[in-house]
Amino acid sequence: MTKLIEYEEASDEVRAVYDDIRVTRQNDYINNFWKAIANHPPTLQRTWQALKEVMVSPGEIDPLMRELIYIAVSATNGCEYCIASHTAAARAKGMNDTMFGELMAIAATANMTNRLANGYQIPVDEKFKT
Amino acid sequence: MTKLIEYEEASDEVRAVYDDIRVTRQNDYINNFWKAIANHPPTLQRTWQALKEVMVSPGEIDPLMRELIYIAVSATNGCEYCIASHTAAARAKGMNDTMFGELMAIAATANMTNRLANGYQIPVDEKFKT
Amino acid sequence: MTKLIEYEEASDEVRAVYDDIRVTRQNDYINNFWKAIANHPPTLQRTWQALKEVMVSPGEIDPLMRELIYIAVSATNGCEYCIASHTAAARAKGMNDTMFGELMAIAATANMTNRLANGYQIPVDEKFKT
Amino acid sequence: MTKLIEYEEASDEVRAVYDDIRVTRQNDYINNFWKAIANHPPTLQRTWQALKEVMVSPGEIDPLMRELIYIAVSATNGCEYCIASHTAAARAKGMNDTMFGELMAIAATANMTNRLANGYQIPVDEKFKT
Amino acid sequence: MTKLIEYEEASDEVRAVYDDIRVTRQNDYINNFWKAIANHPPTLQRTWQALKEVMVSPGEIDPLMRELIYIAVSATNGCEYCIASHTAAARAKGMNDTMFGELMAIAATANMTNRLANGYQIPVDEKFKT
Amino acid sequence: MTKLIEYEEASDEVRAVYDDIRVTRQNDYINNFWKAIANHPPTLQRTWQALKEVMVSPGEIDPLMRELIYIAVSATNGCEYCIASHTAAARAKGMNDTMFGELMAIAATANMTNRLANGYQIPVDEKFKT
Repeated sequence: MTKLIEYEEASDEVRAVYDDIRVTRQNDYINNFWKAIANHPPTLQRTWQALKEVMVSPGEIDPLMRELIYIAVSATNGCEYCIASHTAAARAKGMNDTMFGELMAIAATANMTNRLANGYQIPVDEKFKT
Repeated sequence: MTKLIEYEEASDEVRAVYDDIRVTRQNDYINNFWKAIANHPPTLQRTWQALKEVMVSPGEIDPLMRELIYIAVSATNGCEYCIASHTAAARAKGMNDTMFGELMAIAATANMTNRLANGYQIPVDEKFKT
Repeated sequence: MTKLIEYEEASDEVRAVYDDIRVTRQNDYINNFWKAIANHPPTLQRTWQALKEVMVSPGEIDPLMRELIYIAVSATNGCEYCIASHTAAARAKGMNDTMFGELMAIAATANMTNRLANGYQIPVDEKFKT
Repeated sequence: MTKLIEYEEASDEVRAVYDDIRVTRQNDYINNFWKAIANHPPTLQRTWQALKEVMVSPGEIDPLMRELIYIAVSATNGCEYCIASHTAAARAKGMNDTMFGELMAIAATANMTNRLANGYQIPVDEKFKT
Repeated sequence: MTKLIEYEEASDEVRAVYDDIRVTRQNDYINNFWKAIANHPPTLQRTWQALKEVMVSPGEIDPLMRELIYIAVSATNGCEYCIASHTAAARAKGMNDTMFGELMAIAATANMTNRLANGYQIPVDEKFKT
Repeated sequence: MTKLIEYEEASDEVRAVYDDIRVTRQNDYINNFWKAIANHPPTLQRTWQALKEVMVSPGEIDPLMRELIYIAVSATNGCEYCIASHTAAARAKGMNDTMFGELMAIAATANMTNRLANGYQIPVDEKFKT
């Protein structure tokens, strides 16, 4: 298991990322994901920067919907940590049980039809190519 | 490659599904996915029923967002047919280039962090378990 | 694209594998998979040996069912070549359209429930642990 | 973690599905999968209906072989819950250690060759296209 | 299919990335990947920045080995574009047929054992947990 | 959970493999993976033979790099056992925290770009096809 880097023992460059996570989220909690990848500071910096830009900055897809998309991918990949942490994030942003149920239904159905399309070797319709 | 079952040669049970697809979508076009799985009528019926319930019926996630979630799963799985057909569907429901770009960024980022979480064997935070 | 190694230009060790494929299958055709991995003879030898033992040698699962299992995995992974070649192999061993439809339905349903189990973070029942 | 919905606290529509699961399986035990997805009753109903049709109803692939296919997909996707529950189901239907070993060998071999076919970018043989 | 953004029609921010790709690679060719994701300039910028840092900047894993790791992941995911482009990159950095064969053998074997470990539900040894 | 076959209770053919593992690794420890798949001796023999040839025998990719490639695949597939055991093996062969960090960054980036390439449906450049 990976050593988790706590704030107190972190280098200055790691602390700078932790500080930015706290300010951005307006919450002091640093979850294990960041403490683990802090073992390689360039990965911590780049990953936080990407996540901040993609999940938090202004855009056309609203923040709750971004979390739903994130969960759908994580459920497809079977990433336990990512499902747990982003389900918590989505609930904090307003996801209720019905929305979660609908989300799971969409993700599950897509996984089902993806395999039917593969297995039946279905050619892409001309009208979908343009 | 799978034989595509055209309306003219279809059995009555297959035609009934094709008819419902046309009415539901208010569009005469039957795409190859349905023509291919029509080789096994129970799969055609069950899959169409599921897709209709999950993607079309009233719910808390709006229809365009459902398509985005669907595309994110299909890109994660690398299902060419599903990406092509649901990207077309999403565009028809209002997805523009910026939204698609944001969607791809979210899906790509989730795929990236999923593997960091796996590889670093990160334990789920207690606060995410409840 | 990978160069395909034809019998005429193959080394003796590659020819020995091609010969064994022909004898085992009682068929002169060598499909592209073997001609491609023949670029690395140890991989050709080990892969053919494994496939022969697993798919052809006597066992409790009959040869047609082995092909169905193989296709289910390949459809799940989205491996176009493997789906095409093993669907042909399964048809040669007696798979009809109904069996293929049932197979696809099982594989698709498993892919659907796999994601529901992941996404809902369902704990394994005690009775399934022993 | 998802709340598990027990029979006693379930709504009438959820109880109706639980009752049908018990009758179909001639067994009173409701496993966690159903209790978890019961948080979204339409998903419970649709998923049980699909599973019942695909895994239980009469067909050309016998029930034990259906379980083997299901396990192969679940092992490929790494779905811990699904592997555990369907391995139990397969054992109840007669799977012994040798059959399970053969199944794993087939699934593992398919995952191996799937990646060789991908990595070598092998073109599908003309004879497999028709 | 995605529109490919050529240099001539690109915005200044996109051109700046294309220019940096050319300088970094000391090669005028911009491959389709960048021309496609240029439809969403923030994704183009972030992705190029990440790839440059991870694949090109100084580090302990040499550049050719980085390409091999990249190909192994892409073959596992079945990403045709990524396999083709990074196989070309690896060959340009010195990969020969034998190295590619060994790489494929490692990736294929890992995919095989990954599924055996999943399917047999093997508990992690205590000694691997620390 | 699978029964683990200890040396003392193993058949002669299983013991022969365990002996070879010990001699090859110059280490008496047999990890759970082998004890689990020993339930099906042909799979034990074939899998050990493959792993020994691919991971241990002389070749152009050095043994530490082979472990890195193995981990990248296992993190992509989310195989917890394989990640844990091969991370231990890689550390024993000299992997330090920085190399592991770089490895994770490469694997994560490849998973990210794989999905962008899929989602944007990017055509393979002509120059990568030859």
